[in-house]
Amino acid sequence: MAAELQAIIDAVRNKRPLVHHITNYVTVNDCANICICSGGSPVMTDANEDVKDMSRISSAVVLNMGTLNPRTVDAMLLAGKVARENGVPVVFDAVGAGATPYRNEVAKQIIEQVRPEVIKGNAGEISFLAGVMGGVRGVDSTGVSDNMAELVKGLAEKYGCLVAATGKADYVSDGKDVYVLSNGSDYQGLVSGTGCMLSSVLGAYVGANGVSLESLMAAITVFNVAAEHAEKICKGPGSFKVSLFDCLYGLDPSKIESEAKIQKA
Amino acid sequence: MAAELQAIIDAVRNKRPLVHHITNYVTVNDCANICICSGGSPVMTDANEDVKDMSRISSAVVLNMGTLNPRTVDAMLLAGKVARENGVPVVFDAVGAGATPYRNEVAKQIIEQVRPEVIKGNAGEISFLAGVMGGVRGVDSTGVSDNMAELVKGLAEKYGCLVAATGKADYVSDGKDVYVLSNGSDYQGLVSGTGCMLSSVLGAYVGANGVSLESLMAAITVFNVAAEHAEKICKGPGSFKVSLFDCLYGLDPSKIESEAKIQKA
Amino acid sequence: MAAELQAIIDAVRNKRPLVHHITNYVTVNDCANICICSGGSPVMTDANEDVKDMSRISSAVVLNMGTLNPRTVDAMLLAGKVARENGVPVVFDAVGAGATPYRNEVAKQIIEQVRPEVIKGNAGEISFLAGVMGGVRGVDSTGVSDNMAELVKGLAEKYGCLVAATGKADYVSDGKDVYVLSNGSDYQGLVSGTGCMLSSVLGAYVGANGVSLESLMAAITVFNVAAEHAEKICKGPGSFKVSLFDCLYGLDPSKIESEAKIQKA
Repeated sequence: MAAELQAIIDAVRNKRPLVHHITNYVTVNDCANICICSGGSPVMTDANEDVKDMSRISSAVVLNMGTLNPRTVDAMLLAGKVARENGVPVVFDAVGAGATPYRNEVAKQIIEQVRPEVIKGNAGEISFLAGVMGGVRGVDSTGVSDNMAELVKGLAEKYGCLVAATGKADYVSDGKDVYVLSNGSDYQGLVSGTGCMLSSVLGAYVGANGVSLESLMAAITVFNVAAEHAEKICKGPGSFKVSLFDCLYGLDPSKIESEAKIQKA
Repeated sequence: MAAELQAIIDAVRNKRPLVHHITNYVTVNDCANICICSGGSPVMTDANEDVKDMSRISSAVVLNMGTLNPRTVDAMLLAGKVARENGVPVVFDAVGAGATPYRNEVAKQIIEQVRPEVIKGNAGEISFLAGVMGGVRGVDSTGVSDNMAELVKGLAEKYGCLVAATGKADYVSDGKDVYVLSNGSDYQGLVSGTGCMLSSVLGAYVGANGVSLESLMAAITVFNVAAEHAEKICKGPGSFKVSLFDCLYGLDPSKIESEAKIQKA
Repeated sequence: MAAELQAIIDAVRNKRPLVHHITNYVTVNDCANICICSGGSPVMTDANEDVKDMSRISSAVVLNMGTLNPRTVDAMLLAGKVARENGVPVVFDAVGAGATPYRNEVAKQIIEQVRPEVIKGNAGEISFLAGVMGGVRGVDSTGVSDNMAELVKGLAEKYGCLVAATGKADYVSDGKDVYVLSNGSDYQGLVSGTGCMLSSVLGAYVGANGVSLESLMAAITVFNVAAEHAEKICKGPGSFKVSLFDCLYGLDPSKIESEAKIQKA
């Protein structure tokens, strides 16, 4: 995996994949900048009049329902469908799934109508999707499972896609295998939108390298390793975020092998 | 007040109150991050389909009319009313009140229909609200009074709420007492959205500690003391903002007593 | 030009022109803050109910179609027309012109209906506008000309306005003269929205100094010189952006003469 990691990183930087985002207005600027720092080229547009043409020419589409409303939900469904028809991979970040009925309904629509190649969320969001929508057992009453490995595998299997659940440890699965990724920094929980930012990096990675567990694991690992580097030089959450951009941009691919913490579950 | 300040700060950090924002798209990211740095947990959503459910489960709701439009004004009114019905305190930041007829009309609607527990604005905005809407005397022709103490008191009395007016000195009142708070940095005027950010901190503080002059004074003081710290280490407005997050997050509650500048008017 | 540059910079800082923006939600916060750092006073509002009153009292209006939709396009047309009727200069940033049919249509509407005093874009966007809309020859098949000087001149002549095309070198023209500006940093390409930020600075400069090639050249030069300073102290794209604010705010007008790289084409 390690030699592969380096090649995957280099490919993103060399290809500069165009990543079309329909995302929330809270963290959108950080998403654009982290996408650039990862090697991608971000574009954000959400009018129905515009998204068809933009999705078609993109290398990946990222749908993030952080600040959803009927107009942008329509645009997400349209962008997602056009992307799928044109072989452009779709990453869906299910922000807030499980928190309100509207979010649950929209998550269901996007997953069933678009069939994104990658579903991503934090442990709570993925637990909700796996338990309620996916019919996967193991979600406890708090909505978060103590067995994320089974949940991501079950959800991935159910929808024939890749699933990533983030948290202290990150879990990824293609419905057959499950990997646990253990890089990262506690500061990621102290900055709004680090999850959204990761989705933008995922978009760049699958856009440049194709949809695979390897692309996902590489994207999560470089983002989390950059966070580890940023933690060492920051003085708090504000300077951590600034350094996260610097450190992801300056990441040395030749050292990733010794830094990556990836294990088969 | 000083010993109380420390307990109020600790309560926010321990309770991590969920603060639902309907706010402008200019400064929303900074609002989310400063809310985290103050100890709160921010959420932003503004679709009518979503705000009812989100307001109900929040510890506080912050309404900010910075970039208002009919759709989000509807959402603000709905979120505010649901919050009030469920005992969730509402902080209203009257951004731009007095600048255009539309803003004046919306401010009036929110204040009269929602009856927010806390009305917050800069000196000009509060002067406008007190003078025009509140019928409080003392607003001069420039729209800013030289007697903010009377204005905040009059506005608070008229609507039976707390009022905070920010500026070189900050004034807070519950309609009976008025306090003047004198911490802060000139750099706050050089960064867009420091007023909005303060409203997010106010939300976290009333969410964790209840609606009281003490909650307001603690929130304003920690924000302004953090700004004083940030000023000492910054090199300009850009690094000031970064340090403001770091300094608020790293604020030592045991030292706040010696740093706070709070006086009864 | 050099002595003039200093006077132009001082005028912005002394007058603090109010710059009304209808811009995208990706980079809007950076636009607000860079406007402040340049000496301007930014305001962002995009509801039809509000833009008339705001445009009228502004010193300049910046229209940026980064994340356009029918509601905000209407607001841009309205704000632009009201501004023109009231002698308030309009800067149009044609973000993404040439990328999709919807963007091309909107760019056409804004240019023909508003007749902005300043049209600004990157080399690709200006090449598209000059070639397709302006009927200016010289746009090659990639959409970018190797003769930007002719394109900016042709587009400026066609619409009787000023045109600025940004890139490694920046070109400005009033339809008669063309100037090439060569300050700047490669880091500008690694931060989302440096083009949008420049438009905000352009707004402040024409707002304080009137619409002229000199205002444009001064704005572009101070922004790019600040970027050169920021490059020297940054550690990557994240800290570059932070330093860009600090360096523009702290720019010493008395040194601009020795730093400016402006040549007649």
